[in-house]
Amino acid sequence: MASSDSNNNAVTQQDIEFFVSTGAEVIHGDDQLDAKYNKDYFGKYTGASHLALFPKTTQQVSKILAHCNQRHIAVVTQGGNSGTAGGAIAQHNEVILNLRNMNTIRDLDVISGVVVAESGCVLAELDAYVRESGYIVPVDLGAKKKCMIGGNVSTNAGGLRYLRYGTLHGNVLGLEVVLADGRILDALFSLKKDASGYDVKQLFIGAEGTLGVVTAVSIALAPKPRSSQIAVLGVSDFNKIQRAFVAARQGLGEIVSAFEFWERRCNELVVQYENNPSPLEGPHEFYVMIETRGSVERHDVEKMDAYLAALDAEGLVEEARVFRGTDEMERTWLFRSQMAEAHAKSGCMHVYDFSLPSRHQHELLVAVKQHLKDAGLYGVANAPVRDVTIFGHIGDDNIHLQVVADEFGGEVEAAMEPWVYEWVGSHSGSVAAEHGLGMHKGMFLKYSKSPVVIGVMKSIKQMLDKNGIMNPGKHIDRAC
Amino acid sequence: MASSDSNNNAVTQQDIEFFVSTGAEVIHGDDQLDAKYNKDYFGKYTGASHLALFPKTTQQVSKILAHCNQRHIAVVTQGGNSGTAGGAIAQHNEVILNLRNMNTIRDLDVISGVVVAESGCVLAELDAYVRESGYIVPVDLGAKKKCMIGGNVSTNAGGLRYLRYGTLHGNVLGLEVVLADGRILDALFSLKKDASGYDVKQLFIGAEGTLGVVTAVSIALAPKPRSSQIAVLGVSDFNKIQRAFVAARQGLGEIVSAFEFWERRCNELVVQYENNPSPLEGPHEFYVMIETRGSVERHDVEKMDAYLAALDAEGLVEEARVFRGTDEMERTWLFRSQMAEAHAKSGCMHVYDFSLPSRHQHELLVAVKQHLKDAGLYGVANAPVRDVTIFGHIGDDNIHLQVVADEFGGEVEAAMEPWVYEWVGSHSGSVAAEHGLGMHKGMFLKYSKSPVVIGVMKSIKQMLDKNGIMNPGKHIDRAC
Repeated sequence: MASSDSNNNAVTQQDIEFFVSTGAEVIHGDDQLDAKYNKDYFGKYTGASHLALFPKTTQQVSKILAHCNQRHIAVVTQGGNSGTAGGAIAQHNEVILNLRNMNTIRDLDVISGVVVAESGCVLAELDAYVRESGYIVPVDLGAKKKCMIGGNVSTNAGGLRYLRYGTLHGNVLGLEVVLADGRILDALFSLKKDASGYDVKQLFIGAEGTLGVVTAVSIALAPKPRSSQIAVLGVSDFNKIQRAFVAARQGLGEIVSAFEFWERRCNELVVQYENNPSPLEGPHEFYVMIETRGSVERHDVEKMDAYLAALDAEGLVEEARVFRGTDEMERTWLFRSQMAEAHAKSGCMHVYDFSLPSRHQHELLVAVKQHLKDAGLYGVANAPVRDVTIFGHIGDDNIHLQVVADEFGGEVEAAMEPWVYEWVGSHSGSVAAEHGLGMHKGMFLKYSKSPVVIGVMKSIKQMLDKNGIMNPGKHIDRAC
Repeated sequence: MASSDSNNNAVTQQDIEFFVSTGAEVIHGDDQLDAKYNKDYFGKYTGASHLALFPKTTQQVSKILAHCNQRHIAVVTQGGNSGTAGGAIAQHNEVILNLRNMNTIRDLDVISGVVVAESGCVLAELDAYVRESGYIVPVDLGAKKKCMIGGNVSTNAGGLRYLRYGTLHGNVLGLEVVLADGRILDALFSLKKDASGYDVKQLFIGAEGTLGVVTAVSIALAPKPRSSQIAVLGVSDFNKIQRAFVAARQGLGEIVSAFEFWERRCNELVVQYENNPSPLEGPHEFYVMIETRGSVERHDVEKMDAYLAALDAEGLVEEARVFRGTDEMERTWLFRSQMAEAHAKSGCMHVYDFSLPSRHQHELLVAVKQHLKDAGLYGVANAPVRDVTIFGHIGDDNIHLQVVADEFGGEVEAAMEPWVYEWVGSHSGSVAAEHGLGMHKGMFLKYSKSPVVIGVMKSIKQMLDKNGIMNPGKHIDRAC
């Protein structure tokens, strides 16, 4: 079969026979793999794997990893394959371990509100299941119909409602993980408070499959809201968005559940490429979308009306519209969630996912545009960059930067990287907020993490994956 | 000076001279130490240290640890010394590293609501500081006037409002930690979303000073509530408490911020030993205390009234009283927070802190009483056990069990341990919910954690503290 990467062995016929003997589904025709498992969501990364395994049980995963570890065969774990950073794509000849066949919901405790689900459960399906018992899954994101809960955890997905429900580091109560050597770490606890020793499971949240394979997840659910509404605002400058946000935390208080923004060009791209009408008449320089979730509709409506009146009195909004019916709220969320895909349809989207203090967010957009202009790549005739945009989650300082160009890589990428990572690091930001480090971003980690922090990360990798078989050459392996 | 523990060296005069040269405050008279630093909050543990250091800066901590690591001198870190499990008390001749002199609030970002504070900041003082800017610290507990934020993080304190604000694993955004070898891990980030590599700081939350010294903390704050109220209910059996809780998550929805319970005997002890009047006429078998926090008082009052009416219609309560003024709410919280101290005044309190699925909580109380009766230690004339009680936080399945006896240790402790830990482990509980493992409980870890989990914990300890100088002989060192 194919050549190996420098440290690991290629798969032999005997290996394949062993994998078949575990009971896992096995696919090893390149055509089949290339169509579905060697391709990422946005078409940026192309994988080089020749073998995909689809285990059905934790025991099968354990047998496969024990074998791979002993034989020094590299493994890349894959869920819904909706990542944007290439973390689930085979860089060399790694064996793909796809968890789509492990999709059992093992338990739902309706008193405490805790669900235990296998990693292959699709997020939207898991959410629909727990809704029947009066709960919701606290993490929610645009790719929810494709992404799987194990991948959400492994990427440390943040999503749309951090502001209300917090992070997976808080909501994940337990994990079942198969370690690189095949041992099963049964840390699938369902207790909300646990101060008995180091919280080992935390290491695997955001590890992107570099330390082991997350096979099942225990999550603290949130109560299903009885009442919800959305307001979309047209705002003339970024500073007013920040003022509206501070006012929302006070005035809407405990019911605010999302506070999103996007700029004019993002709005235009969704209208154009997704054929979806704008939620406002507009146009406006910026759009803000605020969602509330509460338990008494009358109270929530009163709070929203008072909040919008206060914004109006302060001269913060140009146009405001409130959406209250289920259908129109869904259409509004659809508009917001199509933003990334609309960019991807308009050209080759270089997407960046940063955490950045809000005072620097608009400054970033201005700096990137100027930088690309100075390089002759934007704002002139026949320039390769078509659009530079930002949108994101104000409540958690997470911003997505898109540079849409004629092609991937090339002079645009060369102009952007590492320049933009250095800019973000020097403005107290993080080079990866919720999409992960994936295939390449490990090399930019040094701009937002110190050598001591990176050194401890490397020790953790060495401790849990001595032979370096788990997603090698990515994530922390690229850090220096 | 004193004899060393088996693995570490005793302190010499040269060592003391070095410690003085760092600029840290140094105390080495046994009388002074014994009065304040060799004694725990509830008088259960007596320390054996002969030297206490009070560094003023992170650099001083770094110099001290680098020296201790090189010389193999054991260190125990101490904050407000309000722990209940002996984790901050010197077992042998460890040097005490007390952080009370590191109490600077380094930063408060009023837009994003993030505070950066040194470990020696007293929790209540930090909370008072951020309240002036419209925020609160999300963790709150009975010992808030004594405990320090670094100790809260190192113990993974849960506290009274997990239900509303979640865990420190979610709320702590960053830590500054001096590692055992003196290196400074500057992971003091203030970003809410960060998926760039392993979340290294998580290891130190709940590590009880066994992996390094937490010197500063970055915490995501919650908005200060504009409206608050408390209801205290008298309830005739435990099952009704659970039903009232499920109803509260639905009916009080987003405003419920605490849901506490205690039993009749706890109420009597506070009345008797703290001279504090009961919040209800009573007596009742169980008392429930529900707090709400919201932004519009009128809405919150309406929700509470509707909730209490629904409980009444269901026949769930015997008596209910609502407290709405600041003074009477404070008095009610005082009553609740005096519970542990009232037990301690009534005799020698063996305190246990478990996480336990709510369906087993009352069963635990019944089982403990029966077990102690069977052993002839309770419920008979001249029995050494005076009281067996439970109280706790319903919202997060955290229960405190008290066995008040004539003396510490002895036949009562022998009857209780490891029996009670085994019982909790076999009922899907955790042997330590929010008080930590401390001096002894590591040996019971095996009842709630598997050998693989304990094995990974031991690897982490070995990775970060090769010489075993950080709080040796406690926590994970006792696990087998």
